[in-house]
Amino acid sequence: MTTTGTTTWVEGAAGSLFDVDNLPYAVFSRAGDEPRVGVRIGDHVLDLAPVAAAEMLDVHHVFQERSLNALMAEGRQVRTSVRAWITGLLTDETERDLVEPHLWPVADVTLHLPVEVADYVDFYASLDHASNVGRIFRPDAEALLPNWRHLPVGYHGRAGTVVGSGTPVVRPSGQRKAPADEAPTYGPSARLDIEAELGFVVGTGTALGDRVGVEDFAEHVFGVVGLNDWSARDIQAWEYVPLGPFLGKSFATSISQWVTPVEALGAAWVDLPGQDPRPLDYLGPDVARGLDIAVEVELNGEVVSRPPYRSMYWSPEQMLAHLTVNGASLRTGDLYGSGTISGPERDQRGSFLELGWGGAEPFGTDVWEGGRTFLEDGDVVTLRYTAPGTGGGRIALGEVTGRIEPARP
Amino acid sequence: MTTTGTTTWVEGAAGSLFDVDNLPYAVFSRAGDEPRVGVRIGDHVLDLAPVAAAEMLDVHHVFQERSLNALMAEGRQVRTSVRAWITGLLTDETERDLVEPHLWPVADVTLHLPVEVADYVDFYASLDHASNVGRIFRPDAEALLPNWRHLPVGYHGRAGTVVGSGTPVVRPSGQRKAPADEAPTYGPSARLDIEAELGFVVGTGTALGDRVGVEDFAEHVFGVVGLNDWSARDIQAWEYVPLGPFLGKSFATSISQWVTPVEALGAAWVDLPGQDPRPLDYLGPDVARGLDIAVEVELNGEVVSRPPYRSMYWSPEQMLAHLTVNGASLRTGDLYGSGTISGPERDQRGSFLELGWGGAEPFGTDVWEGGRTFLEDGDVVTLRYTAPGTGGGRIALGEVTGRIEPARP
Repeated sequence: MTTTGTTTWVEGAAGSLFDVDNLPYAVFSRAGDEPRVGVRIGDHVLDLAPVAAAEMLDVHHVFQERSLNALMAEGRQVRTSVRAWITGLLTDETERDLVEPHLWPVADVTLHLPVEVADYVDFYASLDHASNVGRIFRPDAEALLPNWRHLPVGYHGRAGTVVGSGTPVVRPSGQRKAPADEAPTYGPSARLDIEAELGFVVGTGTALGDRVGVEDFAEHVFGVVGLNDWSARDIQAWEYVPLGPFLGKSFATSISQWVTPVEALGAAWVDLPGQDPRPLDYLGPDVARGLDIAVEVELNGEVVSRPPYRSMYWSPEQMLAHLTVNGASLRTGDLYGSGTISGPERDQRGSFLELGWGGAEPFGTDVWEGGRTFLEDGDVVTLRYTAPGTGGGRIALGEVTGRIEPARP
Repeated sequence: MTTTGTTTWVEGAAGSLFDVDNLPYAVFSRAGDEPRVGVRIGDHVLDLAPVAAAEMLDVHHVFQERSLNALMAEGRQVRTSVRAWITGLLTDETERDLVEPHLWPVADVTLHLPVEVADYVDFYASLDHASNVGRIFRPDAEALLPNWRHLPVGYHGRAGTVVGSGTPVVRPSGQRKAPADEAPTYGPSARLDIEAELGFVVGTGTALGDRVGVEDFAEHVFGVVGLNDWSARDIQAWEYVPLGPFLGKSFATSISQWVTPVEALGAAWVDLPGQDPRPLDYLGPDVARGLDIAVEVELNGEVVSRPPYRSMYWSPEQMLAHLTVNGASLRTGDLYGSGTISGPERDQRGSFLELGWGGAEPFGTDVWEGGRTFLEDGDVVTLRYTAPGTGGGRIALGEVTGRIEPARP
């Protein structure tokens, strides 16, 4: 191990959104090379495998893998040691000769899906989102269902269709039936949407029967990703009773290629906005925390919403405790999404369904004649995330982008 | 390839439920050995790896794996060639000297989870089951929801908690709230149940964006397993709106260790009982078929129900076509369950929820004073399945069993 400084010698990195208090991981490749693990500093990615091999790091093999799973499976102690080692490499001038030849401009490398996803669970943790969706989908009933304030509602999604940022999203086809239609019809979704979420990636698994308490979040969660839970609202509205969303979601879920380790979020933890009624003890009502992460939803270059993650009702720690309270085991690579991040204001809503109120109130009129309700072919949506860093400035989390391609015939 | 006969030289196998028209696969091990792929004949398992190596089979490596995934990924042509080769080995007397040393009594080997499960989807394809559950869970509404006759309703379950037959099932804890309760409480499930299902295992995957038509079922599905979708009804009833079952199901799903290849079901295909209204074209209403499989639900040694798979409304071919109609990709190891198999009669119901009508009508009074409504600690449930074989007799599909252990403190 090298000594750990606080200012990096990497040009342009100090004071940027990718300073040494950030250090997200990705799986990258250069032309003709095998994908392997890198860490980001400034506008560069550090190729960790050769540096770790040269320094004879015990776990150097985990950086030669095509996913972060081997690194993540090593657990919290190794994860924090590796982070300290990387910080040392990037702040100690005497390491520069060794390290600099292995820094590559991010613009010159290809990024890959960072995680071999085991199970994917999607939560529904925003009070504003759940209330808005309730009002739009079930206008004649209470917006919030009776269980919502008692437990973080969640369901399993399709792990096999989690794709990396930048993967084109083909408009899905399927069955949909508007309330006024006599029978359902088959065709391309006409109400294609986004859900701006944060994703949590599990590093250390558990055995069947174990429970993970709220306080053990950082023992099991390795890091966070940007997540866009693409949704076909017309397919979803028709299919979702009584067993939940299925084909309206399973065609694609995009995640960022950069995975921000939870250690980089040390300054982002905040109190929850408040939970009433008090959740049951296993949900750790006295200790569960929120995260102060700012989100931007950009549509074709224009920011159309700024959802505040700190407004989320349920804590990511509570989601994990709930997920495992029945003894369900965790595996390395498990991914869980927060659910759509929506704040109380219109320009804080994290889905088009809410921004355009189910199609009734077009938004984004600065850019498009008449405004927008749902996604059109060719649209590009980019989600960006920043948080306070432990160094006093801000850090950028992994962004996630995707372009809509026309439905296949 | 050897010549293929029709009568096996393996003692006791001819005319049994495991004759050469069956030949299910499993992953097995003998004391101290690595798990590897075997095939069943009579009361024996044939260790395929050494025989395939001796005969220099192209794909001999797939039998040395700890799961069937490598074999399954080879696709339909290889699968049928391998089946023909095995049939030859077991029917040609001249192969006996080579093969016999690699036959082990099933009772002397350990069986393992046969498949590395990718995504797990659970359907809801029985009209009788869906109607019964609707009446019990939503007594004040139409039993069948409006979408039910138009599409095979399904949702994603937890792949990481799919376990092999014989794995003990620990009673899950969680939140539940009876309608009369003021607030939810935490504790062990008091309404633990089974769901007798059939599971379909995908061999050949697809690319994102592809659809699998009803007629391509056998190109993608490798085989079938017995499946028990253990369910905590009190947890499920409280959590399931609006995103579907989650912790009420995710604690364990048991599958048989024997995987019956679809080729063994050649004589089991039957017409569907009838679909009204006519499903949309992508669901192949003119070609979709059902399966004539007899199921037995045994509780502590007594058969309490005999659900007939042929009464299922939706075809397994239609489930696969629906699952992929939005372009969702398939992976080797994907598993989908039929949903509870229930026939129209009381003694054909595939769950305790239905057999005991939500706790109101105890069943099994021959064995227990006062009858049974839900599972008690120590209960053992075994599901057995048989179908007509291509040889004129019957074949046994993989059975699935599990014993309930008390909740953990």
